[in-house]
Amino acid sequence: MCNLEKRGRVYILTLLGDGDHRFNPSTIDAISAALKEVQDSPDAGALVTTNQGRYFSNGLDLQWISQNPDAHLSTIRIKFENLLASFIRLRVPTIAAICGHAAAGGFIVALAHDYRFMRGDRSVLYMSELDIGMKLPRSLMAVIRSKLLPGTLRDVVLGARKFSAQMALEGGIVDSVYADSPQTLEAAVSEAQKLAGRGWKKEIYSELRLGAFPGVLEELDAHRDPYLFPVSSKL
Amino acid sequence: MCNLEKRGRVYILTLLGDGDHRFNPSTIDAISAALKEVQDSPDAGALVTTNQGRYFSNGLDLQWISQNPDAHLSTIRIKFENLLASFIRLRVPTIAAICGHAAAGGFIVALAHDYRFMRGDRSVLYMSELDIGMKLPRSLMAVIRSKLLPGTLRDVVLGARKFSAQMALEGGIVDSVYADSPQTLEAAVSEAQKLAGRGWKKEIYSELRLGAFPGVLEELDAHRDPYLFPVSSKL
Amino acid sequence: MCNLEKRGRVYILTLLGDGDHRFNPSTIDAISAALKEVQDSPDAGALVTTNQGRYFSNGLDLQWISQNPDAHLSTIRIKFENLLASFIRLRVPTIAAICGHAAAGGFIVALAHDYRFMRGDRSVLYMSELDIGMKLPRSLMAVIRSKLLPGTLRDVVLGARKFSAQMALEGGIVDSVYADSPQTLEAAVSEAQKLAGRGWKKEIYSELRLGAFPGVLEELDAHRDPYLFPVSSKL
Repeated sequence: MCNLEKRGRVYILTLLGDGDHRFNPSTIDAISAALKEVQDSPDAGALVTTNQGRYFSNGLDLQWISQNPDAHLSTIRIKFENLLASFIRLRVPTIAAICGHAAAGGFIVALAHDYRFMRGDRSVLYMSELDIGMKLPRSLMAVIRSKLLPGTLRDVVLGARKFSAQMALEGGIVDSVYADSPQTLEAAVSEAQKLAGRGWKKEIYSELRLGAFPGVLEELDAHRDPYLFPVSSKL
Repeated sequence: MCNLEKRGRVYILTLLGDGDHRFNPSTIDAISAALKEVQDSPDAGALVTTNQGRYFSNGLDLQWISQNPDAHLSTIRIKFENLLASFIRLRVPTIAAICGHAAAGGFIVALAHDYRFMRGDRSVLYMSELDIGMKLPRSLMAVIRSKLLPGTLRDVVLGARKFSAQMALEGGIVDSVYADSPQTLEAAVSEAQKLAGRGWKKEIYSELRLGAFPGVLEELDAHRDPYLFPVSSKL
Repeated sequence: MCNLEKRGRVYILTLLGDGDHRFNPSTIDAISAALKEVQDSPDAGALVTTNQGRYFSNGLDLQWISQNPDAHLSTIRIKFENLLASFIRLRVPTIAAICGHAAAGGFIVALAHDYRFMRGDRSVLYMSELDIGMKLPRSLMAVIRSKLLPGTLRDVVLGARKFSAQMALEGGIVDSVYADSPQTLEAAVSEAQKLAGRGWKKEIYSELRLGAFPGVLEELDAHRDPYLFPVSSKL
């Protein structure tokens, strides 16, 4: 499902195969195990998350949910919240090398990284919830809100806009755009090596990330009833 | 005072006449009734709010207040907070087609919409409070803060800057600028029709808006003593 | 250590000498006394803070701390939090005319001003904490977060990036860039005179600033255990 490779002090986590890399309990467990290995590695300096095929990730595995009627949506949501929290708790810089479509939960995983590099072809970033009639839990919304400007946030969440890499660059969603997957990954690994080479203390890096983007981890850890907004009853 | 028209699934709310469309209890009641009609309409798909004349709106009707000495400013403020809350509770996308000056409360009403299209002539957006020596209640400030970048927020609130449409576009306050009122309205209605055509579920749209811009509705609903900041006593 | 000069209704606070203008109890007391004079001056209309030499300020005086072993870091931190609060409580517009390097606490003092004008030579803005292995108290982080966009915030705090004036302009950290120190100061004083000339009521200006950027003063006044984030124990 995923592969963890190490180049110097940089770990590269690759979502494998030509599929759309949906998140279900099995794939989440596999990615979480890889993140734990990075977190426990004494000389880890940075993480790059990338993908094979045409999809970075298409989000939660709704098919798995429909095929496991005993499993509540909340089961997979809680596991997914924990996955996002694991990215945010990593004590090293994180870069998403987005080499394909990133939709819904896949888009949110990319946003949970510190940096986003993207392949500039027909791939899109897309929050599909509005189009398919799903709400967004406040935990996931907290991740989204922490990284986007108000106008972009509106286009992403309330416009269900499909952002090309170029549009995402202009909207401040991604940091840079490259011609193809190899160049995207190469640039991400090169930047990760630079960041790893700065010799930052892991505890400091981690605390500064929490301080700069406060509240996000709290929301993910709370595993709240996700759709309970205090004012929603009045709508 | 205002007119509500329907084109296909798009409602167009027009502030009528050549005046400056000040908000007093009568005008607020008329607009609120129109918004209720949109909210209750089963096939409403989007709302466009626009104006006749040279003013989108010049804000609260201070003359009405001075002519009604028994009426506290808080009476009209609470009604105005409810009006803003009604815009934010609408279960469809909202576009302000700003075809004239929008000052103070008029500016805030425009900010309470999801999108802002503006006529690119001599019209300005202007938060006049500083110039006329009035504070801004934290409820109204919450609406303003939710939509503006830090530097623009400073220019709007602490600079009392008059933003031309072009300046407002560069500052991220409005989404697009047009040559005159008919083109502004036409573009807004056309975009509203596109949004209405996406077939989004109203409950989902509404919940996503609250989740993307949390806290604003809570502030409006609280009807707090508006000028009570916990630290102000120390100034 | 510092000099307070008045031109018309504009006060100019200059950090004197060729040193790097570190903040220790003595320098903080001197600056605080100057700020109190501005605050108490009935006809003060604006403040410009600037520097002689190659440094705006290099931040807290770590050497002083190491030479005063009985003094906890928290002693100087609390004084520094009070200094930042004094800038934020000033009832007039404030402009930092950054005529040299501004690092760590020096950078934060600049961010505590309403406007930032910068000399466009080799001077940099730089949050050095990550490079020297220091955490940032949540009080100081609150000041930083209130003024920066998410991507810039990341580059500043998690990238420890050295921003040239041009980079700082593009990142929205500073408002304008000038060729040298005299031009920077002249532009700042000229803008300050314009702002002072608007005749704003001091109480209104001050309340609007607190309302537009809420929470910052509360964090500074709280003098909390600075490194206690609720989730940090789980890292």
